[in-house]
Amino acid sequence: MAKWLAVALVTGVCCGVVGSLFHIGVERATELREQHPWLLWCLPAAGLVIVAFYKLTKTEGQGTNDIIDAVHHGKPLSIWLLPAIFLGTILTHLCGGSAGREGAALQMGGTIGRHAGNLFNLDDRDLRTATMAGMAAFFSALFGTPLTATVFAIVVISIGVVYHVAFIPCLTASLVAYWISVELGVAPTRFSVAAPELEKLMLLRVAVLGVGCALVSVLLCRTLHFAEHQMKKRLPNAWLRVLVGGGAVIALTYLCGTRDYNGAGMDLITAAVEQGTARPEAFLLKILFTAVTLSAGFKGGEVVPSFFVGATFGCVAGPLLGIPAGFAAALGLAAVFCGATNCPLASIFLSVELFGDGGLLYFALICGISYMLSGYNGLYSSQTIVYSKL
Amino acid sequence: MAKWLAVALVTGVCCGVVGSLFHIGVERATELREQHPWLLWCLPAAGLVIVAFYKLTKTEGQGTNDIIDAVHHGKPLSIWLLPAIFLGTILTHLCGGSAGREGAALQMGGTIGRHAGNLFNLDDRDLRTATMAGMAAFFSALFGTPLTATVFAIVVISIGVVYHVAFIPCLTASLVAYWISVELGVAPTRFSVAAPELEKLMLLRVAVLGVGCALVSVLLCRTLHFAEHQMKKRLPNAWLRVLVGGGAVIALTYLCGTRDYNGAGMDLITAAVEQGTARPEAFLLKILFTAVTLSAGFKGGEVVPSFFVGATFGCVAGPLLGIPAGFAAALGLAAVFCGATNCPLASIFLSVELFGDGGLLYFALICGISYMLSGYNGLYSSQTIVYSKL
Repeated sequence: MAKWLAVALVTGVCCGVVGSLFHIGVERATELREQHPWLLWCLPAAGLVIVAFYKLTKTEGQGTNDIIDAVHHGKPLSIWLLPAIFLGTILTHLCGGSAGREGAALQMGGTIGRHAGNLFNLDDRDLRTATMAGMAAFFSALFGTPLTATVFAIVVISIGVVYHVAFIPCLTASLVAYWISVELGVAPTRFSVAAPELEKLMLLRVAVLGVGCALVSVLLCRTLHFAEHQMKKRLPNAWLRVLVGGGAVIALTYLCGTRDYNGAGMDLITAAVEQGTARPEAFLLKILFTAVTLSAGFKGGEVVPSFFVGATFGCVAGPLLGIPAGFAAALGLAAVFCGATNCPLASIFLSVELFGDGGLLYFALICGISYMLSGYNGLYSSQTIVYSKL
Repeated sequence: MAKWLAVALVTGVCCGVVGSLFHIGVERATELREQHPWLLWCLPAAGLVIVAFYKLTKTEGQGTNDIIDAVHHGKPLSIWLLPAIFLGTILTHLCGGSAGREGAALQMGGTIGRHAGNLFNLDDRDLRTATMAGMAAFFSALFGTPLTATVFAIVVISIGVVYHVAFIPCLTASLVAYWISVELGVAPTRFSVAAPELEKLMLLRVAVLGVGCALVSVLLCRTLHFAEHQMKKRLPNAWLRVLVGGGAVIALTYLCGTRDYNGAGMDLITAAVEQGTARPEAFLLKILFTAVTLSAGFKGGEVVPSFFVGATFGCVAGPLLGIPAGFAAALGLAAVFCGATNCPLASIFLSVELFGDGGLLYFALICGISYMLSGYNGLYSSQTIVYSKL
């Protein structure tokens, strides 16, 4: 026990430091992009750098699915994945690719955890625990949500199975990483939103919104997978693929006449939840931008885009059903995250950590429905869904 | 889907109505006992009535483990369990046995759910879902905690496995039952307690308290099982056993010179959490009273006693570690419940529903530690723990 406590602490410290640097890096990149709009034109070049770095470090094609496999089957992870995804994600955000950061977080965290475990000569089972602890710690440092990070890490691998044995290692690492991130000046992600009183009619409205969110999460996952598959098939050359994809993002940006869909779009998520404002087409365009960006070979993650898609969809669809726009955006965020990751319990904890416990039962209901109706789709193809959903 | 929605609604309505009646019945019985202290002397006679009724309805020896088995292996459940446990629990509370009510809740709820499922000709798998929905709905009606009830029902059967497929049926039934219970005037269980700010030193203190809570939960489970085993071995005759046990509870009550440990003791739990007051020996005496009561053949449950034991232990041990007494009582309640039921995620949701989200990370930490260190003990011997804990 002393061993994994040490591993959890080391993992937590490393993930806390690297995670905070990464967070600050993405934030600085976003500011720079906003100050210098011409950076968008560098996106294809940035793509070439990313491809070159991945080829150089022999990490080409590796991603979050490999992290999940590392826990599933104990597959080893290259330490080079760490600088590759760090650099790749910062460049993607700097030049206006549409992506998140937690794909990067899971990959860097998992790699750090696994290598920390190697340092302590852990056996195979404990190495998997250490990998989960790293995933959780990095997630926690980025979003400031240690409990969600912990639960997410122990349930995301095999849906229907809870790796309870990793709970305390993950929570320890997450708390350490969270503490370091706060010390280093990273503000935890929080939204202030008022939840309506618990009431029958509102529960029905939320249930209907949940059906919509399930469909949106299916659309999100299928579009991402479809784009990835098609791009790989039609443009097997990675250099060419990233050039064409980068060009497509530039073209889309000018076609839409807005920079709303470049980068992570945290400001638009905040606007949807806190001010209750979003454009009706935002969720569709975000899916498109993200699909093009990620399938081209740019780096980042799919979770913040799923937040964006859910929040903007909820914000627009909620009022049609009689749900206040801001609260509906919060519901949509949790529900699309749930539909895309298949983790209802982690999604409910996410809602508590991001929005407080005011709407607890509404969040539980919408996450349950979104999970149930989102089918066997998901962001991570390595994830196994152990039991049937319906 | 329409079928199980109907089953969930029917189950929710039945559990809501029966659960509310049961809640009011236990409450009235408690009031009567407090007004008429001589009722304690009727405990052995009440025991005889309980034994007679169980023999008459051929439900002798059935309990919460049979409900868990009904979900595990699809074992059928006698409808007579419903009146038997209803009557048995009310009589136990009326005459001052030390017991809870949720063992009764799980049994009545499970029975109702299963028979509602039979009405709709559900197949074997859906019958198990209906059984869980009933367990959740009855729990929800009694405590006013629909989400905890739902998560508890889908994780308690096999630790490490989440029956996600039952999530929405359980939540639907729980919400319906909760709504009915509120309409019928049952006040949801809530405590007002202030949580300290998140802080390193306090996290360490809470972790140490968690080790204590794990040991207390082991003591609770082992004492209950030991008493049950010994009583059955030494007094194989059920009539004699209940007479002796009833007499022992009377003797213990006079020896202690207090009625604090008779009945459920919700007022003492409230005093521990809200006023931060409890006697140092309270948790030990409650374990003793409950072990004697339940092993003698009286009815009720082990969850409210585990709340009592945890809250009074935390209230006394917390201040020694520098944790405010009331908050430590809340922590102890969640942690001993977790150690005794092996359900960390449900215990964390319990803390949110009972105490709000102020101390979320403290509750997560203490539940995780209590789970990890409580070994392979538990209140329910039918429960399987699928993966190793450490």
